[in-house]
Amino acid sequence: MTADAPGHRAARLAVPGSLELRIVGRARTPWRRREDAPHQPAAAPDARGVLEIAPDYRAALADLEGFGRIWLLFLFHRSRGWAPRVKPPRGGPKRGVFATRAPNRPSQIGLTSVALHAVDVARGEVHVSGIDLLDDTPLLDVKPYLPMVDAWPEAGHGWLEPYLAAGVEPRLKRPLRPMKPR
Amino acid sequence: MTADAPGHRAARLAVPGSLELRIVGRARTPWRRREDAPHQPAAAPDARGVLEIAPDYRAALADLEGFGRIWLLFLFHRSRGWAPRVKPPRGGPKRGVFATRAPNRPSQIGLTSVALHAVDVARGEVHVSGIDLLDDTPLLDVKPYLPMVDAWPEAGHGWLEPYLAAGVEPRLKRPLRPMKPR
Repeated sequence: MTADAPGHRAARLAVPGSLELRIVGRARTPWRRREDAPHQPAAAPDARGVLEIAPDYRAALADLEGFGRIWLLFLFHRSRGWAPRVKPPRGGPKRGVFATRAPNRPSQIGLTSVALHAVDVARGEVHVSGIDLLDDTPLLDVKPYLPMVDAWPEAGHGWLEPYLAAGVEPRLKRPLRPMKPR
Repeated sequence: MTADAPGHRAARLAVPGSLELRIVGRARTPWRRREDAPHQPAAAPDARGVLEIAPDYRAALADLEGFGRIWLLFLFHRSRGWAPRVKPPRGGPKRGVFATRAPNRPSQIGLTSVALHAVDVARGEVHVSGIDLLDDTPLLDVKPYLPMVDAWPEAGHGWLEPYLAAGVEPRLKRPLRPMKPR
């Protein structure tokens, strides 16, 4: 965002033109089609990927190597707008989108954690595994995963609990519709 | 973002004007000044807060109640631009900002998890605790915390390990400078 744009009043922040969302890089992954991509990293622990960080942001990668996992904030760039309720991949009724990790969110920002293998600061390359992003996904941020604040194994799974208890797996996605010509 | 904005080519996404970041609500918290706010939710487990969700987005809160924790994506609205390296609150040399959770990020988006207590979909109120956000923080997204993909207690803490092992606590922040008049 620009230096003087974000005030602390709602009116200012509600103006879309006053915000700048920086794309810091791209994910290179084995997943070219939506129907191929796993739903979350745990589903594809061996999937290797490389985060290509743009030259302007490479210095910010210093000290990242050594963490076991990192968070990626990214744009659901293939998503088409948002919906208040969505069909979950494990079936059942539509659920409020804030109660899911589905792409169709008001701010179409995704969150995923991946295992970190190596960081080449000079080349702007971050080598990861367990990545569920589509190839070419725009990255907004990279953050270290900190177990002391991020690991809550007993937090429960809300409405998903009965689906997990019954061993229901996510269903395959529908094939990606071709992009409309611009 | 607008319906036709996000293409899959870098050129399009690099244009700030083509993206719309929706502010879905505001956090109401006890923390009015930067120097008062805890560094992460674990530092203030009893701090209560309310997420006020704007009318357009309230229907998306359906089914959220029942989760133990939720993720909040928010704007660091008091942050002033980004820096590739930042001084960590536990001391030591500057670190690459992608290796920290500091506010001074290229896309000034923060990530925190809070304990969920109650959801009033009709009023657009989400009652939480363990919140480390400043009062009035703009919210970009609410997502359920899913231990099956989010809980990695053994991931390690990278360069922070020796500071944690030595029991070094974050130092107090400097007082907030007054906002410049507009």
